[in-house]
Amino acid sequence: MGKSILALCGGVGGAKLVQGLGKTLRPGNLFVFVNTGDDFHHLGLPVSPDLDTVMYTLAGVADQAKGWGIAGETWHFMEMISRFDDLSWFNSGDKDLATHLYRARAAREGLRLDEITRSLSRSFGIEHNIIPMSNDPVRTLVVTDRGTLAFQDYFVRLNCSPRVKAIKFAGCDKARVPGSFTDLLNENKPDAIIIAPSNPLLSIAPILSLKDVRSALQSASVPIVAVSPIISGKALKGPTAKIMEQMDMPVNNVSIAEFYRDFLDGLVIDNKDEHETGEIEKLGIRVKTTGTLMNSIRDRIALAETTIRFADSLSA
Amino acid sequence: MGKSILALCGGVGGAKLVQGLGKTLRPGNLFVFVNTGDDFHHLGLPVSPDLDTVMYTLAGVADQAKGWGIAGETWHFMEMISRFDDLSWFNSGDKDLATHLYRARAAREGLRLDEITRSLSRSFGIEHNIIPMSNDPVRTLVVTDRGTLAFQDYFVRLNCSPRVKAIKFAGCDKARVPGSFTDLLNENKPDAIIIAPSNPLLSIAPILSLKDVRSALQSASVPIVAVSPIISGKALKGPTAKIMEQMDMPVNNVSIAEFYRDFLDGLVIDNKDEHETGEIEKLGIRVKTTGTLMNSIRDRIALAETTIRFADSLSA
Repeated sequence: MGKSILALCGGVGGAKLVQGLGKTLRPGNLFVFVNTGDDFHHLGLPVSPDLDTVMYTLAGVADQAKGWGIAGETWHFMEMISRFDDLSWFNSGDKDLATHLYRARAAREGLRLDEITRSLSRSFGIEHNIIPMSNDPVRTLVVTDRGTLAFQDYFVRLNCSPRVKAIKFAGCDKARVPGSFTDLLNENKPDAIIIAPSNPLLSIAPILSLKDVRSALQSASVPIVAVSPIISGKALKGPTAKIMEQMDMPVNNVSIAEFYRDFLDGLVIDNKDEHETGEIEKLGIRVKTTGTLMNSIRDRIALAETTIRFADSLSA
Repeated sequence: MGKSILALCGGVGGAKLVQGLGKTLRPGNLFVFVNTGDDFHHLGLPVSPDLDTVMYTLAGVADQAKGWGIAGETWHFMEMISRFDDLSWFNSGDKDLATHLYRARAAREGLRLDEITRSLSRSFGIEHNIIPMSNDPVRTLVVTDRGTLAFQDYFVRLNCSPRVKAIKFAGCDKARVPGSFTDLLNENKPDAIIIAPSNPLLSIAPILSLKDVRSALQSASVPIVAVSPIISGKALKGPTAKIMEQMDMPVNNVSIAEFYRDFLDGLVIDNKDEHETGEIEKLGIRVKTTGTLMNSIRDRIALAETTIRFADSLSA
């Protein structure tokens, strides 16, 4: 397809659609704007889980079964360093570690995260554009019944077991989009903006928390379409459903539509949830029903194509 | 053996004798004082090649065939990072990398190199004592016909091909022995000091360049014995012979004796070089001839035992 698309994306779930978009669009025509709220330091190295997942997925080296990490990964580094210290709560494979070490070195040499991401992407032969939401640190903090936790503490170390009361994005008021989000839209002129089926509260909200993003979306002249991460009251990946419940959001597509309501033009939901169409359309948001499960690459491409066509129909 | 020994040591060649000493002496009775002049930063991580070689060797995890690195090492990290950058001149295996990353992290947390070395050694189950010659940076610089080179540049990247004119130890005038070398002798009361068959010019000279080391050796009350790294005019490991030639030192045991002359009591040389005995003894240095080749662990233990007994005979 000759279209150009800007996608907002978190990690595993969203990256699947991004892979489909990447294979559907001509090289260079996809701009993926990625959450960095989950970024953290491990062993003194800067780790950007969502950027890495999107990058590995677009590069075709991602572990398809796990959804994160690199296919054929090995763990000799972790086995050895576990002798020295209890660092095993976050595992970094031998190959994945190369990304973190390269990023650390490039950052010390003064490169910005967007430059480092571009350089890594090129090394992986990726022709599309992966853009971190900010070069400035934004840190997702999860306020729970066990205190306020750094995202990785909540997500990996405590395996999402504390009850979530609120989610904050420390630094979001000062952090700026690389080059500005408005310029990103003006310069690259995407035909549509697609919000990937990532966790709205944990993965897309940090992007929306940045100064000029929400207002730019509200005044965007191109259609904005989201793909819902919910099917039949369940989230297919991760703790999305659980956190929605804990945050008093009914686990359905209406909640997703309401969450993006102030800028969303259309929502793609699964065929099984067709009965929600009426209620979503009452919010002024158009609905497209299709299969949203993405097991195979074929599924991902099919959903990407359907979503692009749906967006296209909304701009007419 | 109930003896206590202080050994001065560089990397691969010396570590073999150190392994023999380690297996000969009771746990805790060996103090290995190790060259850090070859230390450098790679990928932003501090690397201590000689400390690591001695540590891996004493831990029994060293690659016996290569003499450096860890047995059963894998290279997935290097394969991946080579995609990003030309960093392949110095290879770090997946397991070895754990040591460098742990050291980097511990250093950032404020631990000194001797403390980090102790902690790593403990993790490897080493009961003997590995002591870096200094916590302060000393950098071996090789003055060659192709300019002044950092040691790893000369040794690894250029494979020892430039012609050596001089060797300098930057920082040696300010660097201090952890706790002081005199205290090390007074507190641990070794029965002898053994200089391992490391390269005298590159591996032992940096140790001798430190302020109080040479004078402490000169006034030491215990015998000081060296094991020669030369057999029949050849060095068995590395560029020792070549560098001796380039520095106008005849490649024989007499040169080794002369190099350590101001504090050496005895020199262990190979049976094949017995004819050099007279000339060495003229320098006031006693000679012990034995087999100094160390292929097997048995060889290493035998040479360690012979050397300790020889030192013992000199103190009588």
